[in-house]
Amino acid sequence: MAEKLGLSTATVSKALKNYPDINKQTKQRVLDLAASLNYQPNSLAQGLRNKESKIIGLIVPKIVHHFFSNIIAGAIQAAEKNGYLVIILQTNESFELEKNHLKRLIEKNVDGILLSLSDKTTQHKHINQIIEGGVPVVLYDKISKLVNCSKVIINDQKAAYNATKYLIDTGCRKIAHIRGDLKPQTTIDRFKGYKKALLDNQIPFDQSLVYTCKSLSFEEGFKIAKKIVNDHKDVDAVFAFTDLVATGVLKRLHELNIKVPNQISVMGFSNWFLTKITTPTLSTVQQPGYEMGQQAFEILLKDIVTNKKGNPIIPEIIEIPTYVIPRNSTKKLVSVLK
Amino acid sequence: MAEKLGLSTATVSKALKNYPDINKQTKQRVLDLAASLNYQPNSLAQGLRNKESKIIGLIVPKIVHHFFSNIIAGAIQAAEKNGYLVIILQTNESFELEKNHLKRLIEKNVDGILLSLSDKTTQHKHINQIIEGGVPVVLYDKISKLVNCSKVIINDQKAAYNATKYLIDTGCRKIAHIRGDLKPQTTIDRFKGYKKALLDNQIPFDQSLVYTCKSLSFEEGFKIAKKIVNDHKDVDAVFAFTDLVATGVLKRLHELNIKVPNQISVMGFSNWFLTKITTPTLSTVQQPGYEMGQQAFEILLKDIVTNKKGNPIIPEIIEIPTYVIPRNSTKKLVSVLK
Repeated sequence: MAEKLGLSTATVSKALKNYPDINKQTKQRVLDLAASLNYQPNSLAQGLRNKESKIIGLIVPKIVHHFFSNIIAGAIQAAEKNGYLVIILQTNESFELEKNHLKRLIEKNVDGILLSLSDKTTQHKHINQIIEGGVPVVLYDKISKLVNCSKVIINDQKAAYNATKYLIDTGCRKIAHIRGDLKPQTTIDRFKGYKKALLDNQIPFDQSLVYTCKSLSFEEGFKIAKKIVNDHKDVDAVFAFTDLVATGVLKRLHELNIKVPNQISVMGFSNWFLTKITTPTLSTVQQPGYEMGQQAFEILLKDIVTNKKGNPIIPEIIEIPTYVIPRNSTKKLVSVLK
Repeated sequence: MAEKLGLSTATVSKALKNYPDINKQTKQRVLDLAASLNYQPNSLAQGLRNKESKIIGLIVPKIVHHFFSNIIAGAIQAAEKNGYLVIILQTNESFELEKNHLKRLIEKNVDGILLSLSDKTTQHKHINQIIEGGVPVVLYDKISKLVNCSKVIINDQKAAYNATKYLIDTGCRKIAHIRGDLKPQTTIDRFKGYKKALLDNQIPFDQSLVYTCKSLSFEEGFKIAKKIVNDHKDVDAVFAFTDLVATGVLKRLHELNIKVPNQISVMGFSNWFLTKITTPTLSTVQQPGYEMGQQAFEILLKDIVTNKKGNPIIPEIIEIPTYVIPRNSTKKLVSVLK
């Protein structure tokens, strides 16, 4: 083509790729010739030839959410380093949207998919079919044992165990737990960790100290806090399964003139940014979204490469470590040890 | 093909699109025949034929950021309704990344691009070339007059004017302003609005009451608050150009035992989620990210359609309305009117 047009191959190649530094008329001449030769001049066509789009899909339950924002940032950063672009979709916890999004990503010929299951997802045929169809999927955060693929998780049970243990170690004995809905495994695991920490430390488990959130919101925490102190005059700690709810608890206790942490300690979960700016600052569990997004992409890339070579993917489970971040809503460990 | 295989056209079409509800063996038969006929069975190929990818690019300065998260959510929601997918990229305020991201999106044959300029972007050739090359671009939030395309903005000057006016109307007279860097137009416009509100209300402008943030952070607000009260014993309000900085101010004033709003009123800007959970809650200006993302996509789609029809795009500027949200960090309007 370059010969025919009297141009350099570099210019033709740039014109075909629609680089902005090529003169408009030159570009048109190249494109006209390409059309007459039935040449498909963009990277979509190149992608088709390699059977690669260099695009992956990332499905999150919620976009406006500190933890998932961090996951998006981590995944995009890692993808960029490796020459991949990322299409983002949000399920808003809807099973129907999850199915539709996956279908659309497959239609767009993505090279792989990162997926956190919606809270409403109870069957997994739609995911298993994609994996069987040869498109690697990595589940992150909200996963299921019924899908055979690589997964990136935190150990929610261990994390909640450590958070509860921290409350016990600072002298708390009557610890209420605010848990989430029954569906996602994370909320079940956090509850299990709470319960286990009590039992391991000779504190009897009391079901009446466990409260279930209808929605994951500041307002729910605000509402439930009042209920807790009404139901249990002697409660000395509240462990909420997520920071947003814990900040609602903080706010209500403040309004009820209950001193935190002296009368009631409060522990959150996730280390959202907002935990640093509440009064008092909120003790919480670090849930590293950025690292999770990064590692989820990296393992997906590994699976994509394995798949391309025609080798079978051997699913891996990566566990990202968590730890308690003590701030001012819980008592100090040292003062207890004195 | 359907005839040849003894299948329905729907089944063949679904198999070609890799729908999960088609039997694996059937799918293989269809794909084998498609391959022998040199048929390219995915939507990339379909996209190539229509010269449409049904994918757009969305470039944000930052992903982990309440306002931009909302923009992403709004744009993705509107895109989804119209059958488009969205590739997200982050510039992290780097001009080089902005250029690279745009180039990569063009290589991927996106149908259009939504872009908020990085703080370091001072020349716009790279954007103008894309527009001249026939790919519609819509600028949102951080824009430039030197790019001739549709834009979605808020009127930062008017918004800051109203915020300052609110402080004046509640009795404040010595109002400090914390502003951002000199680069992005938004921070200049907010400063201008602050200054104009003072002058329109017979309050002399005092340059020593204007403080510049080095970084947009909680810590900066925390640091500058101390400086403000040291420099000006009689300051009675602080208007920060963004909520994150304002919450730092709140925190420091609390530690310095200065009563908010009785001694010093504090006003933020953006209505981030965190403004509802500070003690006291933060008065602020509503900056509607979700609506901005939505409208940015809608105007881009209009431009894409216009372009496809071969008509010239007539750039539009859409202004999303803002308003002051009074909370507990400012005095009440009514008590002044009494």
